[in-house]
Amino acid sequence: MDSPWDELTLAFSRTSMFPFFDIAHYLVSVMALKRQPGAVAVAWKNPLSSWFTAMLHCFGGGILSCVLLAEPPLRFLANNTNILLASSIWYITFFCPCDLVSQGYSFLPVQLLAAGMKEVTRTWKIVGGVTHANTYYKNGWIVMIAVGWARGAGGSIITNFEQLVKGSWKPEANEWLKMSYPAKVTLLGSVIFTFQHTKHLAVSRHNLMFLYTMFLVATKITMMITETATVPFALFEDALSRMLFGWQQQFTPCEKKSETKSSFNGTGSSTSKPIAVASDTVKKKHTKKT
Amino acid sequence: MDSPWDELTLAFSRTSMFPFFDIAHYLVSVMALKRQPGAVAVAWKNPLSSWFTAMLHCFGGGILSCVLLAEPPLRFLANNTNILLASSIWYITFFCPCDLVSQGYSFLPVQLLAAGMKEVTRTWKIVGGVTHANTYYKNGWIVMIAVGWARGAGGSIITNFEQLVKGSWKPEANEWLKMSYPAKVTLLGSVIFTFQHTKHLAVSRHNLMFLYTMFLVATKITMMITETATVPFALFEDALSRMLFGWQQQFTPCEKKSETKSSFNGTGSSTSKPIAVASDTVKKKHTKKT
Amino acid sequence: MDSPWDELTLAFSRTSMFPFFDIAHYLVSVMALKRQPGAVAVAWKNPLSSWFTAMLHCFGGGILSCVLLAEPPLRFLANNTNILLASSIWYITFFCPCDLVSQGYSFLPVQLLAAGMKEVTRTWKIVGGVTHANTYYKNGWIVMIAVGWARGAGGSIITNFEQLVKGSWKPEANEWLKMSYPAKVTLLGSVIFTFQHTKHLAVSRHNLMFLYTMFLVATKITMMITETATVPFALFEDALSRMLFGWQQQFTPCEKKSETKSSFNGTGSSTSKPIAVASDTVKKKHTKKT
Repeated sequence: MDSPWDELTLAFSRTSMFPFFDIAHYLVSVMALKRQPGAVAVAWKNPLSSWFTAMLHCFGGGILSCVLLAEPPLRFLANNTNILLASSIWYITFFCPCDLVSQGYSFLPVQLLAAGMKEVTRTWKIVGGVTHANTYYKNGWIVMIAVGWARGAGGSIITNFEQLVKGSWKPEANEWLKMSYPAKVTLLGSVIFTFQHTKHLAVSRHNLMFLYTMFLVATKITMMITETATVPFALFEDALSRMLFGWQQQFTPCEKKSETKSSFNGTGSSTSKPIAVASDTVKKKHTKKT
Repeated sequence: MDSPWDELTLAFSRTSMFPFFDIAHYLVSVMALKRQPGAVAVAWKNPLSSWFTAMLHCFGGGILSCVLLAEPPLRFLANNTNILLASSIWYITFFCPCDLVSQGYSFLPVQLLAAGMKEVTRTWKIVGGVTHANTYYKNGWIVMIAVGWARGAGGSIITNFEQLVKGSWKPEANEWLKMSYPAKVTLLGSVIFTFQHTKHLAVSRHNLMFLYTMFLVATKITMMITETATVPFALFEDALSRMLFGWQQQFTPCEKKSETKSSFNGTGSSTSKPIAVASDTVKKKHTKKT
Repeated sequence: MDSPWDELTLAFSRTSMFPFFDIAHYLVSVMALKRQPGAVAVAWKNPLSSWFTAMLHCFGGGILSCVLLAEPPLRFLANNTNILLASSIWYITFFCPCDLVSQGYSFLPVQLLAAGMKEVTRTWKIVGGVTHANTYYKNGWIVMIAVGWARGAGGSIITNFEQLVKGSWKPEANEWLKMSYPAKVTLLGSVIFTFQHTKHLAVSRHNLMFLYTMFLVATKITMMITETATVPFALFEDALSRMLFGWQQQFTPCEKKSETKSSFNGTGSSTSKPIAVASDTVKKKHTKKT
């Protein structure tokens, strides 16, 4: 335990998120909100609505995990310090004279630093969600995965839902039909930490936190520098989906046409056709019977 | 108590839902999901979203009753066995080679058997919801009716809500303005079992469960064989609505025109006209006064 | 304490809302529902949906505060007396022969009396919400403000949400982008009573309740008689918003054009342009670097 590596990872896993990493998370979230079209106009016309939206962007994951576990969604409001911190960052971001914050944030090194620190908070949120869900359900590992995922990446779901309620919903930006990269990587991390917590993974937690955080920061920064949205483990995904869902495409020529067609064009009508035909035959059978 | 009828109903009311009736319920729910247009394409493009939708179809009623009683909506995920059972049924339904499950399900006897067993689970859900709500509110019989109804027929509400969030909402298919047959019959059963639970109905529970389940299965199967969506107690409904809401149509000629018109065409503008007129007179009165 | 003023306010603060003020609140809420286009037709075609909407209009604030504090939203159904009272008022309002209730309500003095009594219930709701939230979070004054606000003015949010689910959503009527007068005045009262509860306001509660209620009733009745929707404290609002958010419009000529433009026309594109430009320069920088 007293090898330098263990000491490093242990010290890393004990760093507190409160002052600086939280500030980075709030800054990235509020800047993402400000870049939405019309957000600045809303902040000038109705500051309260803009402040509420900013709070949802900053604390969305915690709110979603509270909702999923039937805890008060207002609990995040009880932490006055974080609220005032996020509110002040929202204030200087939207109402700073000469828009200094946006101009300072528009430089890449600042963005890289803030994004990297935000990814660090993601690890802490996942671990917190998994351990918190374990206090409710002893061996409900599905719940642990879900809560860790919600606390780590649920902010986008909450903000999508808020846009839906506000009427400014963009259906091409929803999280349901196409998982974004943060959602995927958070799901991976939630699964990993759940298995570590249920002792199915023989790795000490602080090592896992260090490695997963390094992976998060490295992928995020590389994706930001080389402005590509290509997920680094697309190959792994393809293999997995082919193994799970695609294997009958080789072995079963009987359904190959319709299945692949329906999997490529979004209709699925070709696959639901045999069912309709069958039910028609059923109808005929009964019109004969009666 | 040891009459053969009582023994039969008692044994029936003690049958466990777990392995077989739950499987039938999951199968019917997942097949209903698969027959939606585009569901197969979604399952091929984004299996996770399809799995989530299938879980909502299978456990929607329990989730809604949990939300209404402020219990964790994730509780259904804590029951690992049922989750794995429903997931495997979802998997073989959507990804079975040659689409064997759909073809087997397209035969009417299989559909009748599965639908009948699903109706049996409905009774168990209603009774469970009523008794569960009674543990919260001692004499809150309205809550008991609502929770029993939600657990028995809330799945459609949850799935409608999920379609709304996903943007694929069909407003002609919503449960709000027009109650479907399952919603009506579940409401009836919830009222009956609530009155039985509050001792206003002098029938033993197992007899009531047997009779109500027989009624559910008989009506469902007859509706499936003679492919009619006509509710068998439409006459009862008409009489009730006429007695409650329609009686002034005979006795009050003063409102007959507008009320009946507004009850037939969906506008209701004719009825809201007198109010507008009255408020106009009020306005005139005050323009005079000032 | 035995000055006549204190005796008056103390007696006022001890008056029970139950029979008469609640009736006035239900009457105003149900009449507001009935004046919506098509509400009468819905009540005739599907009474259950109309009853559910009426209950949401009557108990919306309590439901929202229950949701925010993770209490059962069905708790309002456990109070059978109030439910039956509101249901009977909904019944006679929608199905009374000759539409007597609407015609009687269309006279201005009746409207003034009912509206004034409804405003009295608003004070009681705010105080109840603040004290109830204080039992959860000792010094979470933000939560107290939010819960008092939700219980006092949350009905409109709930009803908007219900219209959204029912598909009859009117995006120009939403509460998010433009706070209505009740929402503003309820927020003010919630802040005042929270500060009084946390001893930051050296006023006895019954005096504050009396004064705030008088203010509510006076402003409401004046707004109804002189049919103006102008908020009486618009000047105060302008001063506050200018002090908080508008001050850089005088001192910072650098951003004056874009900010004021984006604050007047709803696009905000002009303000988000510098960011886009900056990121473009960043892109150029890296295309050079690579």
